[in-house]
Amino acid sequence: MKKISLLAPGPTPVPPRTLLAMAQPLIHHRSADFMEVIGQVRAGLKKVFQTANDVLVFSSSGTGAMESAVANLLCPGDKAIAVRGGKFGERWSLILKAYGCQPVDLDVPWGQAVKPADVEKLLAADPSIKAVFVQALETSTGVDHPIAELAQVTKKTKAVLVVDAVSALGAYSIPTDQWGLDVVLSGSQKALMLPPGLAFASIGPKALEMMKTSTLPKFYFSWAKELKSQGENKGAFTSPVTLFMGLLDIFKYLDEIGMDKIFAETALNSKAFKAAVKAWGLDLYSKERPSPALTAVQCPEGVDGQKVVKWLKDKYGIFIAGGQDQAKGKIFRVAHMGYINQFDTLQGISAIEMALKGLGYSFQMGAGAAAAQKVFGEA
Amino acid sequence: MKKISLLAPGPTPVPPRTLLAMAQPLIHHRSADFMEVIGQVRAGLKKVFQTANDVLVFSSSGTGAMESAVANLLCPGDKAIAVRGGKFGERWSLILKAYGCQPVDLDVPWGQAVKPADVEKLLAADPSIKAVFVQALETSTGVDHPIAELAQVTKKTKAVLVVDAVSALGAYSIPTDQWGLDVVLSGSQKALMLPPGLAFASIGPKALEMMKTSTLPKFYFSWAKELKSQGENKGAFTSPVTLFMGLLDIFKYLDEIGMDKIFAETALNSKAFKAAVKAWGLDLYSKERPSPALTAVQCPEGVDGQKVVKWLKDKYGIFIAGGQDQAKGKIFRVAHMGYINQFDTLQGISAIEMALKGLGYSFQMGAGAAAAQKVFGEA
Repeated sequence: MKKISLLAPGPTPVPPRTLLAMAQPLIHHRSADFMEVIGQVRAGLKKVFQTANDVLVFSSSGTGAMESAVANLLCPGDKAIAVRGGKFGERWSLILKAYGCQPVDLDVPWGQAVKPADVEKLLAADPSIKAVFVQALETSTGVDHPIAELAQVTKKTKAVLVVDAVSALGAYSIPTDQWGLDVVLSGSQKALMLPPGLAFASIGPKALEMMKTSTLPKFYFSWAKELKSQGENKGAFTSPVTLFMGLLDIFKYLDEIGMDKIFAETALNSKAFKAAVKAWGLDLYSKERPSPALTAVQCPEGVDGQKVVKWLKDKYGIFIAGGQDQAKGKIFRVAHMGYINQFDTLQGISAIEMALKGLGYSFQMGAGAAAAQKVFGEA
Repeated sequence: MKKISLLAPGPTPVPPRTLLAMAQPLIHHRSADFMEVIGQVRAGLKKVFQTANDVLVFSSSGTGAMESAVANLLCPGDKAIAVRGGKFGERWSLILKAYGCQPVDLDVPWGQAVKPADVEKLLAADPSIKAVFVQALETSTGVDHPIAELAQVTKKTKAVLVVDAVSALGAYSIPTDQWGLDVVLSGSQKALMLPPGLAFASIGPKALEMMKTSTLPKFYFSWAKELKSQGENKGAFTSPVTLFMGLLDIFKYLDEIGMDKIFAETALNSKAFKAAVKAWGLDLYSKERPSPALTAVQCPEGVDGQKVVKWLKDKYGIFIAGGQDQAKGKIFRVAHMGYINQFDTLQGISAIEMALKGLGYSFQMGAGAAAAQKVFGEA
């Protein structure tokens, strides 16, 4: 019996009760009933984003929200820093170029975190730079960038800080307002435990001001349009009704458990998994600030990360993720966020042990599981 | 007991088996298993679109697909005809303006269909016009524009024909290749019986050529990017996994029943409903080419269309749609496409009769139901 188990950094498992909430008959997206749903979603998002800002919802993947930030803040030819420490950081640069802006690429070796001082230097050297685009968690490397510190830097300048928190929000605390994050983006399919299809954008006052002067073309992703519509509890365009119903159920679930407990559980899964990695004699791919939301593991010599992923999927029905681009084959990545508990984590550890052994890596079978059990037992 | 019943022109009811197919545990969107799903979705879409063209899938509402057509075909300042015969026709003009193009607005009174000769005249008068944007079914008025005839006009020129078939595709036959439609767009939540969240774009050879010269900014909706990715059975960005699984189930369902039978059932629902409208002594809002996919009914003097909609929703749990913009309050709209059968239609007719009576319209109760039953009985 192969049971499907999602341990990749998104999409993460959806709670069965939420799957069933989404399997109820749909209601009409232009009804008073659905306006009430949108109102509840708006309130719930503010809570999860820890903000008083409006948090917009888009029917798209997280990349749509990233594009919306570029299109709604900038003008053609504008300069903006793209923190490129992985595949998603590189995406900022690509979007900026696609829109005729000038990316100021701040290259960070994969596996490392950006240094706020480097951002500060770039901003000081060129005050015409209008924005800093960065990831909270660079999903391709498992590294958390220091976004609280980056906000300290940007708040002294005219530049806005745009944080892609697609895989971070809900996995650990991101206090948008307390840290002064101008724009925070996220998606439904990571710590928010839903299928992919919803993207979010929290927009602070400094970003709202910059938005007013932006001349890049936008329509579907227009913040101004959605601020008006969603401010009246309507979507400018057809809302993905089932995902909204799912999101309401997730908010209920988060309330029942409490966000702090969820953050703690994610952190504990991460700690246990990272202990297993050490017990295998392996290293993290994330040399700095490894995220609690996921672990990127450096493969041992002679073991292809893609083969580990394939082994788990084909033999056990367990989905983890491999490396992307320059990390392809060299790493595998395992998620700890969302609807993943200690036994999911232990299952992943056991499966990886069997795969590593099967692929010829020599280590003491069971060492990883034991190390993780110890962490869980002590908690 | 109020049972929710969707009779609005989207979202339409989702078959329970499809809701349950979407409630299964998710698989990972970057796995070989999901690549197979994308392959099947691609093949199924070609069948439904009746085309050998690539049909791209986007995680967005239908408006995203509309925007993609503008952004991927045109350059700043380009001229394009927007057939404005309703709210969705007007949207073409708004998107063109948002992108710095010059819409050539061809205004058609709401409730009427565009005359191909008028398009021909505009194109002849200005050969620099690069595209004609039109709806197959203008959902706000219930009118089908003559897209086969429009294709006869555009094929003699350099202009491409872009058809928004969001509410038409799957409700009646739209033979993309036979009619020579350059671009056909659709969405998941109408005749394809799914929740909202997927948009589609079939792209023919003439459009592919024009795409190569387009300089408008695009990233998330880039056709070139998705043609490459989806051509390899991958999504450029995170695919909405559950909706893809739902779409596979819908394709199975369409195959079991047969598209011709589905078209016939939609047409019969429409015929029966329109017979009921006549029996009530009311007129269609669609003065020309009323669509088989939905019926837009002109309200009697003194009856507010919005109140009819509210009556059905509040008292019976039945969702129909009111009028939009200039038609607001004057009409109500009832869908016949998708997972809607004769008894859903009869239920809608009965409910509307009770609402019309309750709102003070004087007519013979039961006359509409009888007229519809006669149509169904004779079929």
